[in-house]
Amino acid sequence: MSIMTEPHAGAGVAPTRTGVLAPTYEGDYVLDEQLLLECGRALAGVNLHYAVYGRLNAARDNAVLVCHALSGSALVGSWWPEIFAPGGVLSLDRDFVICINMLGSCYGSTGPGSVDPETGNIYGPDFPLVSIRDNVRAQARLLDSLGIRRVRLALGGSIGGMQALDWTIHDPGRVECAAVIGVAPLSAMGLALNHLQRQAIEHDPDWAGGYYLPQRPPRQGLSLARQIAMLSYKSAELFNERFGRNPNRNGEDPWGLDNQGGGLIGGRFDIAGYLDHQGERFKDRFDANSYLAILRTMDTWDPLHGYSSPAEAFGRIRARLCFVGISSDWLFPAQAVSDFANTIREAGVHADYREMASNHGHDAFLAEQAELVRLLQ
Amino acid sequence: MSIMTEPHAGAGVAPTRTGVLAPTYEGDYVLDEQLLLECGRALAGVNLHYAVYGRLNAARDNAVLVCHALSGSALVGSWWPEIFAPGGVLSLDRDFVICINMLGSCYGSTGPGSVDPETGNIYGPDFPLVSIRDNVRAQARLLDSLGIRRVRLALGGSIGGMQALDWTIHDPGRVECAAVIGVAPLSAMGLALNHLQRQAIEHDPDWAGGYYLPQRPPRQGLSLARQIAMLSYKSAELFNERFGRNPNRNGEDPWGLDNQGGGLIGGRFDIAGYLDHQGERFKDRFDANSYLAILRTMDTWDPLHGYSSPAEAFGRIRARLCFVGISSDWLFPAQAVSDFANTIREAGVHADYREMASNHGHDAFLAEQAELVRLLQ
Repeated sequence: MSIMTEPHAGAGVAPTRTGVLAPTYEGDYVLDEQLLLECGRALAGVNLHYAVYGRLNAARDNAVLVCHALSGSALVGSWWPEIFAPGGVLSLDRDFVICINMLGSCYGSTGPGSVDPETGNIYGPDFPLVSIRDNVRAQARLLDSLGIRRVRLALGGSIGGMQALDWTIHDPGRVECAAVIGVAPLSAMGLALNHLQRQAIEHDPDWAGGYYLPQRPPRQGLSLARQIAMLSYKSAELFNERFGRNPNRNGEDPWGLDNQGGGLIGGRFDIAGYLDHQGERFKDRFDANSYLAILRTMDTWDPLHGYSSPAEAFGRIRARLCFVGISSDWLFPAQAVSDFANTIREAGVHADYREMASNHGHDAFLAEQAELVRLLQ
Repeated sequence: MSIMTEPHAGAGVAPTRTGVLAPTYEGDYVLDEQLLLECGRALAGVNLHYAVYGRLNAARDNAVLVCHALSGSALVGSWWPEIFAPGGVLSLDRDFVICINMLGSCYGSTGPGSVDPETGNIYGPDFPLVSIRDNVRAQARLLDSLGIRRVRLALGGSIGGMQALDWTIHDPGRVECAAVIGVAPLSAMGLALNHLQRQAIEHDPDWAGGYYLPQRPPRQGLSLARQIAMLSYKSAELFNERFGRNPNRNGEDPWGLDNQGGGLIGGRFDIAGYLDHQGERFKDRFDANSYLAILRTMDTWDPLHGYSSPAEAFGRIRARLCFVGISSDWLFPAQAVSDFANTIREAGVHADYREMASNHGHDAFLAEQAELVRLLQ
């Protein structure tokens, strides 16, 4: 769900990127009607920030929709460059790729940092619950405006995969194929992890009930929330391999066996330095209220909501689906993804399941893009 | 590491206990010399709070040492009653059971809440790093004072297992058998979890650098730390089984699909209510500085410290060891416990390995005591 794995204090934790791809166009679309939300509230003047790559053909039938993960943005060429690599999943000679920033985010679409046209104030903590389905409905209006009636492929990892799947349920005639990566209904452990992250933010001395000052956001809390999340994005195996029980690479001494031995807080281990670095980076690039908004979107995702049975909900799907599980993912375990694909297949849907062998954990769809591309081909 | 699994808001999460066993004697022992610590500092006037069950025989050779886990106390009859059950691991007709509160704890032994005799102030955050080995050395003096030269069995789970094992390395003639339950050297993931817990406490508005007022401790932070820990004490499977995606049992609505739909913080899921309840209970029974002290003791445990090789360290052991791994433990995975037992066996030590099949996670040694007893017999 991180948009990328960042290096830790100068060391090469992140795999080498093939480079950043600039969008053909990056812009905004304002819905002309208010968006009625599943929670019963309505959002007026909804803005969707989006980026496109490649050209829409005359028949307008070469569109691919990429849905981003929690902390991602519309700039898929920046955070998922390798799916555009030659021989990869997408081709800019063929495809018109569109990626739309999720509602609630702080990367351009309407979110808690936006002004509520009804009050003239920013929404802040009063931003309503926007469901995955609400996102799909808003995104559909943007595609309408571009004259795109049919999407060749919708794909995404994590909460992006929730969106890709919801597209196939709620707008079944519109998507030919969907790739749903590293995701299944959020488990009790997933809900638990999000609950801890919420508290980390709410306990920050600068939280102010969500009405924090723009110049004084709850940075510490957001950093801790990110670090809690990082544990679920990576794997114990990867951590052992990369960090083990090494002292932090800046020379701190966790044992303090010399004269600095005093105190309850000792020198850090390497893994602690890494996590602090991840938190530090994140608190400067994301907004706490946006983070909470999207956590709630994720928590409440239930593809069966409003249907009487899995057969009724999933029976709507006309797209061919491809599910990808990640062998070391413990946030959305491979087995849960495989079981989910089975449930959907039982509704008569074409639902393929493939498994990515990786020790990167949930983040593998971002950290090992070449392997993902190989699997999706 | 919890001393027991507590019910969640009235529901029977905890297994039925066989009852609480009162100690024969509960008291304190003050070391007559200062305790030189591995970190280089010294503690003067060290107090060990301990409890005994049963009677020491005339030969003083019927002692059993129980070592408690992070948040435990000397009152082993309260938190581990079933190991005393008839036909169980311990018999009060035969054994003299002693359990000594760890240094750093808030349950009677010297810790951050004690007065430093050198300054006349409580140690607070200046309490030094006390290693597992330091604990063993202090405990040995208490056994000396009781005339106990030999211990039939030393046993403990989690950080209690670290102590039991260190006894066999550092006082090899004294322990006949040791049962080391659900523990191995703390992995990078374990260090990561402790790092997050530390931050949860330090971010509390009432933390005050550790010099918090006794009437105003960092309660929120300690609660969050406990909740983070709970994730690692339990298993995803258990959480799914017990809580799934149910709304909190008090009737909160996580979806807020009616008119309460606004806001970034929705009604809680059941797992969130459970975690909050765990945090709530814990913050009223434990001290934040003590928690940090024992986390540091745990983090820095390295049985090889001061030895040139595993062969040199583990080759000292004369006791027969029994390691117990828990199938669903992800804090100290069964495979890690088994590998650790193998490493020790390679040094020529008798080291048995047994595995507890349980979906309770790390906490199984407390939550499923009858099963543990069966395995240890």
